[in-house]
Amino acid sequence: MNIIEQFKDIKDYFSPKIIAEVNDQYVKIAKIKGEDIPWHNHENEDELFYILEGNLLMEVEKEANRTLKAGDVFVVPKGVNHRVSAKEECSIMLIETKSTKHTGEIKSPITKSIQEQSY
Amino acid sequence: MNIIEQFKDIKDYFSPKIIAEVNDQYVKIAKIKGEDIPWHNHENEDELFYILEGNLLMEVEKEANRTLKAGDVFVVPKGVNHRVSAKEECSIMLIETKSTKHTGEIKSPITKSIQEQSY
Repeated sequence: MNIIEQFKDIKDYFSPKIIAEVNDQYVKIAKIKGEDIPWHNHENEDELFYILEGNLLMEVEKEANRTLKAGDVFVVPKGVNHRVSAKEECSIMLIETKSTKHTGEIKSPITKSIQEQSY
Repeated sequence: MNIIEQFKDIKDYFSPKIIAEVNDQYVKIAKIKGEDIPWHNHENEDELFYILEGNLLMEVEKEANRTLKAGDVFVVPKGVNHRVSAKEECSIMLIETKSTKHTGEIKSPITKSIQEQSY
């Protein structure tokens, strides 16, 4: 599996794809452009963001906004409200527990099931 | 934490550094050059390799050798004997359970404790 190749097949924004399983975690890749992701949290699960290309605006409740750039790694601890967005296309890797719902308990037009996140 | 910056500080080969914790996993980065890693396995833990730069020779018991290149993601399942090496410097990311010993139960001159893997 090659991430660079895999990204060429991703046409939709906000649609994470599972590229690997390791222990109880999924590794996913996604493209982000726009502000469609609602504020949400994952009650019991940390979520790791790794920026491969572009800039990601990381909003975390009660914290100053961060602009993450290529090479940046950022972990949102479990239970913490957050939202990510990008003005221009941004390519990211995610590491999260298999049980994690990508928009938490919030249902939004972009919410995808695990089946929809699988190849 | 920026991985690109962090790699500049890594001078030693075969010396993984923990750059993030997510759930029960460590994310580590390492530089590999040479054949110092012994054959080993992790009885209860999968190990994910993600190649950032260079080529990594991945040897897995009873399988044909693989040369992993930038962007490649490869998971060694728990209990499977493996060994990695590189002719030229190779930069990798690892995802493994916090309890994973990086050379399994094999002690070798390159074996590092978790403390030695921490910043």
